[in-house]
Amino acid sequence: MFISFEGTEGVGKSTLIATLQATLVAQQYDVILTREPGGTPLAEKIRQLLLQPDQEKMCASTELLLIYAARAQHLDQVILPALNANKIVLCDRFVDASIAYQCGGRGLDRQHIDLLTENFVSRLPDITFWLDAPVEVGMQRAQKRAALDRFEQEKTEFFNRVRQTYQAIATQSPQRVVCLDATQTPKQIAEIALQYIRQKI
Amino acid sequence: MFISFEGTEGVGKSTLIATLQATLVAQQYDVILTREPGGTPLAEKIRQLLLQPDQEKMCASTELLLIYAARAQHLDQVILPALNANKIVLCDRFVDASIAYQCGGRGLDRQHIDLLTENFVSRLPDITFWLDAPVEVGMQRAQKRAALDRFEQEKTEFFNRVRQTYQAIATQSPQRVVCLDATQTPKQIAEIALQYIRQKI
Repeated sequence: MFISFEGTEGVGKSTLIATLQATLVAQQYDVILTREPGGTPLAEKIRQLLLQPDQEKMCASTELLLIYAARAQHLDQVILPALNANKIVLCDRFVDASIAYQCGGRGLDRQHIDLLTENFVSRLPDITFWLDAPVEVGMQRAQKRAALDRFEQEKTEFFNRVRQTYQAIATQSPQRVVCLDATQTPKQIAEIALQYIRQKI
Repeated sequence: MFISFEGTEGVGKSTLIATLQATLVAQQYDVILTREPGGTPLAEKIRQLLLQPDQEKMCASTELLLIYAARAQHLDQVILPALNANKIVLCDRFVDASIAYQCGGRGLDRQHIDLLTENFVSRLPDITFWLDAPVEVGMQRAQKRAALDRFEQEKTEFFNRVRQTYQAIATQSPQRVVCLDATQTPKQIAEIALQYIRQKI
């Protein structure tokens, strides 16, 4: 089973993924935890290029193509082999993040993103948990963690557009995307997510 | 004017480009010399990922998407601004290299490459000089230069497919692509190329 986790900065994806991993492993499931952009040594190098603030302005098309380059490698080397071995794959961000950030946030044409997905992404998640909270709540948490990366440095309006786009994706794909209220406690969120996973298993 | 230079390893692209640059600058033209993958600091970092032999096998889609990511940045930051300022752009490799290496060499679907070009490349070269020589001749020169990069480590059959694909491109686009016999002397080659450039100017 392939499960992805989505949401704006600081909504608690990492905490939820760690809790789910621990619970599922305790129940004898074979689980791998991975993330995007990244997930392989090469894809993590691409992630560095994407996140590092740089003097040279990265154009929106370059950003999008780098993300899909990392995704192709991640699918080929990690996700597909794990799914073929009947593992549960927990993936921090996937295709929806490209729609939310590059289309919603940066204003790129949705068609560009869809054609990359159609031609270079051979497998979509079975379940996507979208952790939703007001942008300000998440940003406060993100700012406490560490120096802000190139995406985290964006302004509130950017993240509001990202959040609205996640909302639109959830509306378009109600069978795959589960919206979780990220202002609940981590324990409450994990329990709801586990119920959905058990239903699918 | 936007001029690209194509061909397999060791056919003499760099020598030709340097000679044309010197000649055109001496004639008061404003010329910039650039290359793919690369041409901006960020795109050169992507080039490093592409050329460096690595323990992790790079999948063909990742390679293709990285090349187009670098190309989008190169167009946006270097090529289009230079053309808008009426400069002559001499570019070592461009879209045809993706068709020859990733489609001809690696066997990727030509449609994948064409849709990336249609959606992410807003400008094609006015003239493309394709330096053609038997693969063995070029490989001997490349082997003398330095340690072989990830592409240069490919086998002869790979480069024969690349060369055949350049031939097919030249046949498809006779108005843009000029085939130069790379077994001639550098001086002879540069003279023929200059004649074509003067005609276009």
